[in-house]
Amino acid sequence: MTAHASHNERTDSDVGDIATYMTNLGQAARAAATRMRRTVTGDKNRALLAMAEQLQHHRSEVMAANAADLARGQESGLDAALLDRLALDDARFDAMLEGLHQVAALPDPVGEIDALRSRPSGIQVGQMRVPLGVIGIIYESRPNVTLEAASLCLKSGNACILRGGSEARESNAAIAACIRRGLREAGLPEATVQVVATTDRAAVGQLISMPAYVDVIIPRGGKSLIERISREAKVPVIKHLDGVCHVYVDATAELDKALAIAVNAKTQRYGTCNTMETLLIDAPVAEELLPRLASAYAEHGVELRGCERTRAILDTITAASEEDWHAEYLAPVLAIRVVDGIEAAMEHIDRYGSHHTDAIVTEHYGLARRFMAEVDSSSVMVNASTRFADGFEYGLGAEIGISTDKLHARGPVGLEGLTTRKYVVLGDGQVRQ
Amino acid sequence: MTAHASHNERTDSDVGDIATYMTNLGQAARAAATRMRRTVTGDKNRALLAMAEQLQHHRSEVMAANAADLARGQESGLDAALLDRLALDDARFDAMLEGLHQVAALPDPVGEIDALRSRPSGIQVGQMRVPLGVIGIIYESRPNVTLEAASLCLKSGNACILRGGSEARESNAAIAACIRRGLREAGLPEATVQVVATTDRAAVGQLISMPAYVDVIIPRGGKSLIERISREAKVPVIKHLDGVCHVYVDATAELDKALAIAVNAKTQRYGTCNTMETLLIDAPVAEELLPRLASAYAEHGVELRGCERTRAILDTITAASEEDWHAEYLAPVLAIRVVDGIEAAMEHIDRYGSHHTDAIVTEHYGLARRFMAEVDSSSVMVNASTRFADGFEYGLGAEIGISTDKLHARGPVGLEGLTTRKYVVLGDGQVRQ
Repeated sequence: MTAHASHNERTDSDVGDIATYMTNLGQAARAAATRMRRTVTGDKNRALLAMAEQLQHHRSEVMAANAADLARGQESGLDAALLDRLALDDARFDAMLEGLHQVAALPDPVGEIDALRSRPSGIQVGQMRVPLGVIGIIYESRPNVTLEAASLCLKSGNACILRGGSEARESNAAIAACIRRGLREAGLPEATVQVVATTDRAAVGQLISMPAYVDVIIPRGGKSLIERISREAKVPVIKHLDGVCHVYVDATAELDKALAIAVNAKTQRYGTCNTMETLLIDAPVAEELLPRLASAYAEHGVELRGCERTRAILDTITAASEEDWHAEYLAPVLAIRVVDGIEAAMEHIDRYGSHHTDAIVTEHYGLARRFMAEVDSSSVMVNASTRFADGFEYGLGAEIGISTDKLHARGPVGLEGLTTRKYVVLGDGQVRQ
Repeated sequence: MTAHASHNERTDSDVGDIATYMTNLGQAARAAATRMRRTVTGDKNRALLAMAEQLQHHRSEVMAANAADLARGQESGLDAALLDRLALDDARFDAMLEGLHQVAALPDPVGEIDALRSRPSGIQVGQMRVPLGVIGIIYESRPNVTLEAASLCLKSGNACILRGGSEARESNAAIAACIRRGLREAGLPEATVQVVATTDRAAVGQLISMPAYVDVIIPRGGKSLIERISREAKVPVIKHLDGVCHVYVDATAELDKALAIAVNAKTQRYGTCNTMETLLIDAPVAEELLPRLASAYAEHGVELRGCERTRAILDTITAASEEDWHAEYLAPVLAIRVVDGIEAAMEHIDRYGSHHTDAIVTEHYGLARRFMAEVDSSSVMVNASTRFADGFEYGLGAEIGISTDKLHARGPVGLEGLTTRKYVVLGDGQVRQ
């Protein structure tokens, strides 16, 4: 009865030898990537819209597959948060369809040559944006990631191999079937998007060890998954590790703005990587600002943990330990430290932060400029909430993740991060002297 | 009597425990990198020019150190090519000084924000070019690499840890002493450039395993060195692997241009990675072009190895084996294959090439366009010699290597490749809704 069977997906039992199966996926992906390099934008967009139509047409089958996953999850005792991430309802389904339309409407980064410069030798030299090739994406329970990842890889001209969580296997298989039908309808190779049809963990080990067939791995999930994959991968990994984000309120800050930013950065959402985890306050404004902050946070039920100087002003809060300065709480908990000026604030950020997103609140021009130049994080902000560190808020139109790496892509990764630039040289018979 | 002793360099015997020694270098480099983030262009340029003055002032000591290295090399039986790479003469010394002046004259990439865009939320978002941080460079015998690497890392705002070949240890120590004096004179931290003072191989193992202190490793040297380092490194590596470069002469090519390009791409220099190793010729022009090519190559003493169809026209040449298509000869040897059109040519390039540099010679607009879009190499050329794939020829003003990676930097790497871009957000109290 499951969508799994009805879509003729291969099950765990019939992929055969995992190494052979993954090598076959890899070879097919490489061939599809070669074909995708010459696929024009219109065909890619047509495939995206055809996928949306297929999903709409097979909506009940996808929902039935999801219901089967949910039933199995409940039986096996998955926790409520995981079941929630796994569940598709009409709103989430509609959001998936809407996402495909949005990606189709984005400008295609492939083929862009930003400048073609003439050199003394007579050649013209430029850099052309091209797909990376084959992208492997490893993720956990949310089935809508299957579609999101597939659409971004497709639009950027890449082939992809997707490995979702075992909890979502029937949902993913049903979505994959719609993706394949959409690709076929648009005349693109079906291997442009392949969903790994086995939940055997060995498949992940294979996927990250095939440099001949996979150009980059993007793991989406918890820190331990990402660390393990980075450690074991034989291909480059675009990592998204933790966000220990700071807001530093300088003595010249307008305190109303500081209050609004500090509250928003902590409370707008607790579980996101761009949520503030430690608030640093310049000593001269601590006495005025801390009580106002404390009452605002109390309204949101945020637990405060402070340094000695903070506790001298807010005497009812817990003492922050060394561990608190390192903590990514992802919860209604905030560490607060009173510091003496921007140097001390930047030292704290450098020492304890994760170089993800850090903000200063100040009206001092020179300090704003220093903070921007010197804080070594993927996003550095002046007078804005750290919660803005996001591909959509930044105008990328999409986001496959937020890179905490320094090389290649840093910060929110959109379509551009799924491409690379090669040199193109145009001549008229030039030779080197 | 050696410069080694006279400059008070530490010798192999007194660095003590290698792990501790390297950790100390790493910590000092990290601190210097933090300071370098706020160092303005003028101070960096002053340091570069001060280094040039110091080198000029201590020229005889550096030359004496080099003479000591050469003497030791001769004693230990280094081959002539290695001794040549090791040797400094007046011309090479002058070129080093000139290089420092050139790097000082280059525009500083750091701090550049290409565009700052307003978002609906009211924030402005841009990307600022910033140093990578600490760069580890591992290289072989040429002592001028010490200065070249140091100057490019400094200009791009990075700290670096340099590990040269043991053959050049006294030369490198003498050059390092001049670099340090130049940094001191300009008021920059001496740890901005550190030369590893031990030739113990364990130091390399440590250098590539300190992600807390080193942001990226750039190995410069033979393929086996680079492969070993890539395999073992725990930090990202910018790789420069082999160049199996192709020229494809299409049937519509102007044969005089094809001849000039094919001869230049092979013979202008044999030992470089952008030298053509395989020539592909479209069948309709093979009969006319091959004899002309053969006589041109004969003048240069290039040995030809051909496919069956090539040998049907040039019947005296050796048969090319499967191995020849994979070969990076770095020598006066060329593999030639007659193919049927651009599809076959691109298939050959994809299958046997190393994705370094590949060129088409054609007067057909559509084929030129296809070749540019579809050949997945770091440099793709139309009607120009592959030998142009070079940072100076491309106008980068400098070159630390040619990356064969797809991520981060691809092709010739200049100052920009030693930087990364972080997001900067300017607001006026904005919070996320």
